[in-house]
Amino acid sequence: MHGILVIADGLGGRPTDTKEGKTCLEAAKTLALDELARQGALGLVDPIGPGVRPGSDTAHLSLLGYDPYEIYTGRGVFECLGIGMDVRADDICFRANFATVEARKGEYIVTDRRAGRIDSGQQDLARALNEIEPDAPGVTFEFRASTQHRGALLLRGSGLSRHVGENDPHATGKAALLFEPLDGSEEARRTASALNELVEKSHAVLGEHPVNVARASDGQAPANYILARGAADCPDIPSIESMYGVRGAVIAGGALYRGVALACGMTSITVPGATGGLDTDLRAKAEAAARALEDYDYVFVHMKGTDNAGHDQDAAAKTAFIERIDAEFFTPLLEKVDMAMTHLAFTGDHTTPIDFGDHTHEPVPVLFAGPNVMPDCTEAFGEREAGRGGLGRFSGRVLPMLLGYNNWSPKFGS
Amino acid sequence: MHGILVIADGLGGRPTDTKEGKTCLEAAKTLALDELARQGALGLVDPIGPGVRPGSDTAHLSLLGYDPYEIYTGRGVFECLGIGMDVRADDICFRANFATVEARKGEYIVTDRRAGRIDSGQQDLARALNEIEPDAPGVTFEFRASTQHRGALLLRGSGLSRHVGENDPHATGKAALLFEPLDGSEEARRTASALNELVEKSHAVLGEHPVNVARASDGQAPANYILARGAADCPDIPSIESMYGVRGAVIAGGALYRGVALACGMTSITVPGATGGLDTDLRAKAEAAARALEDYDYVFVHMKGTDNAGHDQDAAAKTAFIERIDAEFFTPLLEKVDMAMTHLAFTGDHTTPIDFGDHTHEPVPVLFAGPNVMPDCTEAFGEREAGRGGLGRFSGRVLPMLLGYNNWSPKFGS
Repeated sequence: MHGILVIADGLGGRPTDTKEGKTCLEAAKTLALDELARQGALGLVDPIGPGVRPGSDTAHLSLLGYDPYEIYTGRGVFECLGIGMDVRADDICFRANFATVEARKGEYIVTDRRAGRIDSGQQDLARALNEIEPDAPGVTFEFRASTQHRGALLLRGSGLSRHVGENDPHATGKAALLFEPLDGSEEARRTASALNELVEKSHAVLGEHPVNVARASDGQAPANYILARGAADCPDIPSIESMYGVRGAVIAGGALYRGVALACGMTSITVPGATGGLDTDLRAKAEAAARALEDYDYVFVHMKGTDNAGHDQDAAAKTAFIERIDAEFFTPLLEKVDMAMTHLAFTGDHTTPIDFGDHTHEPVPVLFAGPNVMPDCTEAFGEREAGRGGLGRFSGRVLPMLLGYNNWSPKFGS
Repeated sequence: MHGILVIADGLGGRPTDTKEGKTCLEAAKTLALDELARQGALGLVDPIGPGVRPGSDTAHLSLLGYDPYEIYTGRGVFECLGIGMDVRADDICFRANFATVEARKGEYIVTDRRAGRIDSGQQDLARALNEIEPDAPGVTFEFRASTQHRGALLLRGSGLSRHVGENDPHATGKAALLFEPLDGSEEARRTASALNELVEKSHAVLGEHPVNVARASDGQAPANYILARGAADCPDIPSIESMYGVRGAVIAGGALYRGVALACGMTSITVPGATGGLDTDLRAKAEAAARALEDYDYVFVHMKGTDNAGHDQDAAAKTAFIERIDAEFFTPLLEKVDMAMTHLAFTGDHTTPIDFGDHTHEPVPVLFAGPNVMPDCTEAFGEREAGRGGLGRFSGRVLPMLLGYNNWSPKFGS
C-alpha cells in the first residue's frame, strides 16, 4: 500500500471570494477532484482546532499529527532545516533576509525590507557574512541565502536562548530594532547581545561588498543589512518513521514546508521547476510524487500558489491555480498511481480568503480516497459539499488518518 | 430516569468487509436498531481521538469519560479487577496465561502459548502456584485462573514498579523472555527479578502437577509455564458515582471490560451464559440489563462477539452476531424497558475490519435514543448513515453524554 498527502496552502475560501457567492475552490472547474469526491469521502478539518487561526508552520505540524501547542517554538528552525542547514539540538534558528538601511543618527532606517528583491550575488554576500568572527566566546553562526532576499540564520554555542525578539520593524521608514531578551535569563541576554553585535558587523561587511557597490551604481537597493525573526530551537519530536514504521518523502518548493517535513523525519525530493509559487511545474511534481512511491511508503506534496494568490487578494489567480492543480497535478497523478493500492488525502493548511488576504480560522475541506475509505454522498470537492461529507468535522491529524487507512498505525493500549 | 450504554466490541467496519461494498453492520438486518435510529440520532465517535488506533482498554476508558493519555498505565490491572482480584494502590498487575514450554539448553521454548486451550484443572494448578514462597523479602503474589488458559497475576509489596517488560515471546518455537526492568530504577530491577524467580519456580511446580501428568498421558499439551504481560498499577481515577452521583452496573462476559467498569466504580452483575464470545446468551444479557435498572441508575452492557469475528476475519460471523444483537438483545430489551423514562446509547469501542483482522483508527457509529435526544434524519444504523447523523463527529465521552441526557451531569463552572 502507498499513501499520498497533498496540501494546497491557504486552499480554503469564503463566500465573498467571488461575485457569485462561491469560494475560489467552488468556482474552479475540478473534474479529477470531483471524481475523487464521488469515490471517496469529504469532511471539514480545523487545521489546529475550532476557531484557531493557524500559521502555516503550526497548521502543518498539526495536520501531520503533532500538537503544535506542545512542540512549536518558532518558525526559524523550519526555515533553517528547509534550506538544508544542519540544525542541532541547542541551535537558535531564525528566518532572516537581506534588507536595505540608511544609517541616521546612530540608527539604521529600513528603506527596503527586501533589498529590492535582490536576485543575484546573494551567495557572495552570504560568504562574506560567514567570515565575521563573533566577539561572544564560544558562539558561532551561519547565514544561508535562499531565493531572492530570503535566507536563514543559525546561532550555535552553549548558553544561548530562543527567548529573544527580532530586529525587523515590519515597516519601511522605521529604524531596525535591537534584539531584546524576552525573559530575565542570562542566556537570553547573551543571545540578544550576540545578535546585535552580529548585525552591526554585518552592516559594515555588506556595505562595502562589491555586489552592493555594483548595485548602488546601477541604482538598485543595496542588500546592506540582515533582518532576523522567528527565533526557535529544534523541537524534540519523534519521527513519523519511529511512530509508524514507514518512510516518507516530501516534495515542496517552499523552504518552510520542506523544513517542517524534515523535522518530522521525511526525506526531501528536489523537483526542478517546483518554485513554491504560482508558476510552479505541477506536472513535474505529479511525476515526482508517483516516482517517489517506488522508494517511499508515502509522499507529502505541498503547493504554495493558492496561498500566494489569496495573500494577493487575486480571486482569478487562486481559481486558476486550483484548476491547474486539478488538471496538471491530480489528472496525471491518477493515471500513474494504482488507486486500488493507494490512499490519498487532499486538504489545505488554512483558509486564505480574498477579501481579507491573510489566514483565517475556518475549517478547510478535506478529501480522502482509496479502498478502505467509506464512500459518502458528496459529488464535488468544495467547502459547502465538505460540510455535508461523511467524515464530519475534526481537528488536524490528516496524516495519521491517511497512514491508518493503510493499516500502519500503532495501537494505543491493548 | 435510567441509562443504558451498550458497547459491541470492534463494531465498526470498512466498505471492504463484504463483496457488496457494505460493512458487516450495514449488511446486517437490524430492525430494532433501525427503528431506534429513526426515533433518535446518530453520529460518529472517534473512540479516543481522530486518527488514533485504539486498544480496547484505552477506548473503553475514553468512551466512559476518562482521558486514557492521562490515566492509562497498562492492561493488567483491568484483567486482575475483571476476574475479581482485590487490587490495591501499589499492586503490580499482569494479564497472564498458562503456556506449554520445553526446557532446552537452559531456555524454555514455548511450544503452545495457550497450553492447548486447557479447559479443566486450571483452578488446581492455580492453587499449587499460589503456594510458592517468593525469595524476595516482603513480596507476595497471587495467580488467578479464569477461562481456559487465561488468568491474571498480581504482585504485592513495597518498592515494586510497573516499569517491567513481559516474558511472552508472542510466537511459538521461541524461548520465553526474561522480564527486564524498563527504566533504571531499583524498583523495576527488583520487580523483574521477583517475576523471573516466580516463573522459574512455577515451571517446577506445574511440571510435576498431577493435572499436567494426566494431560501428558492423554497427549495434551501440559500447562507448565506462566506467560505474563501488560504490567500496570491501579489508575487513581474518580468513580462515576463520585462525579455524577449515580450508581451503575456492568454486564460483560470478558474480564477486561468488567475490570475497566469496576475501576470506574460500577458493580458487576454476573449473567450465566454471558461468555464473552460469539456463543454468548444475548437474551439473558437483555433480561439482566432490564432487571439491573430496578437497582441501578444505569447499566453498561458489553458484547465481545463482533470483535472476535473481526479478528477471525469472518464477515458472515460478524454480520450474524450483529443480527443476533438486534434480535436477541435489543428487541427483548425494548419490550422490557420504558423508553419514555430511559436514554440509550449504542456504539463500538473501535473498528475491526474483516480485511485487516485487527483494530483500526476509523470513527465508529454511535446511536442515542430517548426523550431528550434530538431526532435527526437517519433511518438505519450503520457507518454511512452515521456519517450524515445529527450528532456529527466527536471524540469519546459517550457515557457522560448518556448521563447528561438524564440531567445527571455536574456543572463545570457556575
